Amino acid sequence: MSTATSPLAQPFPALPAIDGVTLRVARAQYKKWDRTDLTFVTLPEGTSVAGVLTTSKCPSPEVEWCRQALVLGQARALVVNAGNSNAFTGHRGRAAVEAIAARTAAAMECQPSDVFVASTGVIGVPLPIDKAEAGLDAAFTAEPCGWQEAAATIMTTDTFAKGATTTVIVDGRTVTLAGIIKGSGMIAPDMATMLGFIFTDAAVAPEFLQRALSAANGRSFSCITVDGDTSTSDTVLAFATGKAGNAPLVDDESDGADAFRAALADLCHQLALLVVRDGEGATKLIEIRVEGAESDRSAHRIAMSIANSPLVKTAIAGEDANWGRVVMAVGKAGEPAERDRLSIRFGETLVAKDGLAVEGYDEAPVAAHLKGQEIAVGVDLGLGEGVATVWTCDLTHGYISINADYRS
Amino acid sequence: MSTATSPLAQPFPALPAIDGVTLRVARAQYKKWDRTDLTFVTLPEGTSVAGVLTTSKCPSPEVEWCRQALVLGQARALVVNAGNSNAFTGHRGRAAVEAIAARTAAAMECQPSDVFVASTGVIGVPLPIDKAEAGLDAAFTAEPCGWQEAAATIMTTDTFAKGATTTVIVDGRTVTLAGIIKGSGMIAPDMATMLGFIFTDAAVAPEFLQRALSAANGRSFSCITVDGDTSTSDTVLAFATGKAGNAPLVDDESDGADAFRAALADLCHQLALLVVRDGEGATKLIEIRVEGAESDRSAHRIAMSIANSPLVKTAIAGEDANWGRVVMAVGKAGEPAERDRLSIRFGETLVAKDGLAVEGYDEAPVAAHLKGQEIAVGVDLGLGEGVATVWTCDLTHGYISINADYRS
Repeated sequence: MSTATSPLAQPFPALPAIDGVTLRVARAQYKKWDRTDLTFVTLPEGTSVAGVLTTSKCPSPEVEWCRQALVLGQARALVVNAGNSNAFTGHRGRAAVEAIAARTAAAMECQPSDVFVASTGVIGVPLPIDKAEAGLDAAFTAEPCGWQEAAATIMTTDTFAKGATTTVIVDGRTVTLAGIIKGSGMIAPDMATMLGFIFTDAAVAPEFLQRALSAANGRSFSCITVDGDTSTSDTVLAFATGKAGNAPLVDDESDGADAFRAALADLCHQLALLVVRDGEGATKLIEIRVEGAESDRSAHRIAMSIANSPLVKTAIAGEDANWGRVVMAVGKAGEPAERDRLSIRFGETLVAKDGLAVEGYDEAPVAAHLKGQEIAVGVDLGLGEGVATVWTCDLTHGYISINADYRS
Repeated sequence: MSTATSPLAQPFPALPAIDGVTLRVARAQYKKWDRTDLTFVTLPEGTSVAGVLTTSKCPSPEVEWCRQALVLGQARALVVNAGNSNAFTGHRGRAAVEAIAARTAAAMECQPSDVFVASTGVIGVPLPIDKAEAGLDAAFTAEPCGWQEAAATIMTTDTFAKGATTTVIVDGRTVTLAGIIKGSGMIAPDMATMLGFIFTDAAVAPEFLQRALSAANGRSFSCITVDGDTSTSDTVLAFATGKAGNAPLVDDESDGADAFRAALADLCHQLALLVVRDGEGATKLIEIRVEGAESDRSAHRIAMSIANSPLVKTAIAGEDANWGRVVMAVGKAGEPAERDRLSIRFGETLVAKDGLAVEGYDEAPVAAHLKGQEIAVGVDLGLGEGVATVWTCDLTHGYISINADYRS
């Protein structure tokens, strides 16, 4: 199945090298395809790592492996397999992850727990160990490659390679952050989603890196949804090589801690939006802003109820200012709301206020806004100070075609 | 917009008259269409009423009206408007409901609180009082009609008229139950959904009728979902005229109480499944049975997570035995589950067991089952005694066409 590039795609940006990070790709041939599908990243001694992982009760063995290894906070290598998620494969799946870690640790002369593994693709087929090992052996001796090639190698149903970068001054040194990410369907709320990998040359203690990543996750990956379906393999890992030479960031009092946190949050935000832009069948990027809720948590739940509503998403696909469906989605969220205080806007135009339609509102700017590619829906509940912003895409025939019009 | 009849449609059954219940329809012309859109039902003095209503935080004024009137437990008339839900219309919407109740009460020589009102259709447009009153005046003098005509008159995006009936012996008398229902999209979990109206000639005290209806609702209307979107107008009302002459059912000890409850539950089940059969774009009726959960409530939540998963619903639309997506939906439900105890079947065939695929299972019966119109998905969590069954339909291009391919 080939899919046209998302109309919301963005060109791959120029990503700088991160001192200490070397990327390589190889062909493990996990599927019958003519492309690289194994990514191998080496990291220098002293690299810190942090991660956020799916909260699925049925996680892949890769997720379990990373969860255990993250406790130690150290990383020397990352292996990413595309085309087979290895999820729900029992002891054979676990054996495949252990074999990958062991072979990589032997080549790197490090501990298996220093090797992080992530896999993405079909569920229920054990990752073939022979293919993984042959792919690894090829990767060990391959020429280093660039970010775009690695970003393309971790893709599955994605229609474009996704990366982002930012820089920040920490302790008088310019440190660089760069990340790549994949994800298009089975993208859902309330947790880390997809596979995302972030690298920085900053020196950062693992505990601080973890706190900063978890905070950034709460405002980025946890605020996007394509279809409300949560993968068994969602993983975001952040690696800090320390090569920038700054005094290590260890806590909130460290010089540059605030700036680093903000830069990491910015990078996560950029990466998360790229995933929504590649949402299966997406033709519009939708930002949903909820204000006036009883709490931020309540605002987030209401925003997600709107973002996951098939009727809201199809209305926007149809460029229809059907704010009644937004009312419906607010009402079903189960959170405090008072119909007669509710107001709704599309773009800059208030279309409903105090529990009824704004009489004679100007439909022209609303229609023009809905014809665009970036749609803003605003809801004010008029109850309190709680706010949240989430991002999603529209629901189109493209989503059905990608997910129903073939046999696996 | 015209839509072809659902391939899952069932012919309208022969519904018996219910002693005391008279049906009439009229043209209020709530939309520009050439059809009846106002249903008027008269009920004899002494009729008991019970109801279950949407839990939406943004309910229609009709829902609020019914909630208040239900406290009194008495009914003399029902008015149903199709084409305009009157939801989110502020004081003008409330005034319309009051006007309908007042005009009907004057004609019936009863209290306004004896008049139940329900409306379905577009959100955000106040129901025009002049059209409602003219429609009522026409209905008051119209010839009585049959069940099928009334069932067709309450439809909106429905593609076929829906009704069901059953009989039961209570206190030595045969009592009859009949119901009509509408609903196709914006059909969602965990509450009474849609507009459904049930009539019986049994003598039943309002409190017992309410308990029996609430219990039946928990196993029928609360166990179906089309798109996970919950209407602002969902209403199911049950009316008991008492004309069958049985000693009134007042509590669980009354003669025939168990039989009546079972009959009401059966009728609700029949009606609920008719709504799923008319799910927007549906081509397959899907039954999801979850066993072995920690509790019935946990089983219900997991079943609904599967039933609302766009990836599961599109896989079934594509006749794809993609049980990995079922694993995904179990994992995201947030309920207790252990991957390595989980088993999944399609139809009668076990496809995954103890956390991995059943090696070499026979794909032929699975493929044959998925080509049918009635699909059974079974999940056994292997944890406890909790069970639940829910019903949904597949997600197809038809759903997108109905909801995105037009402007409102």
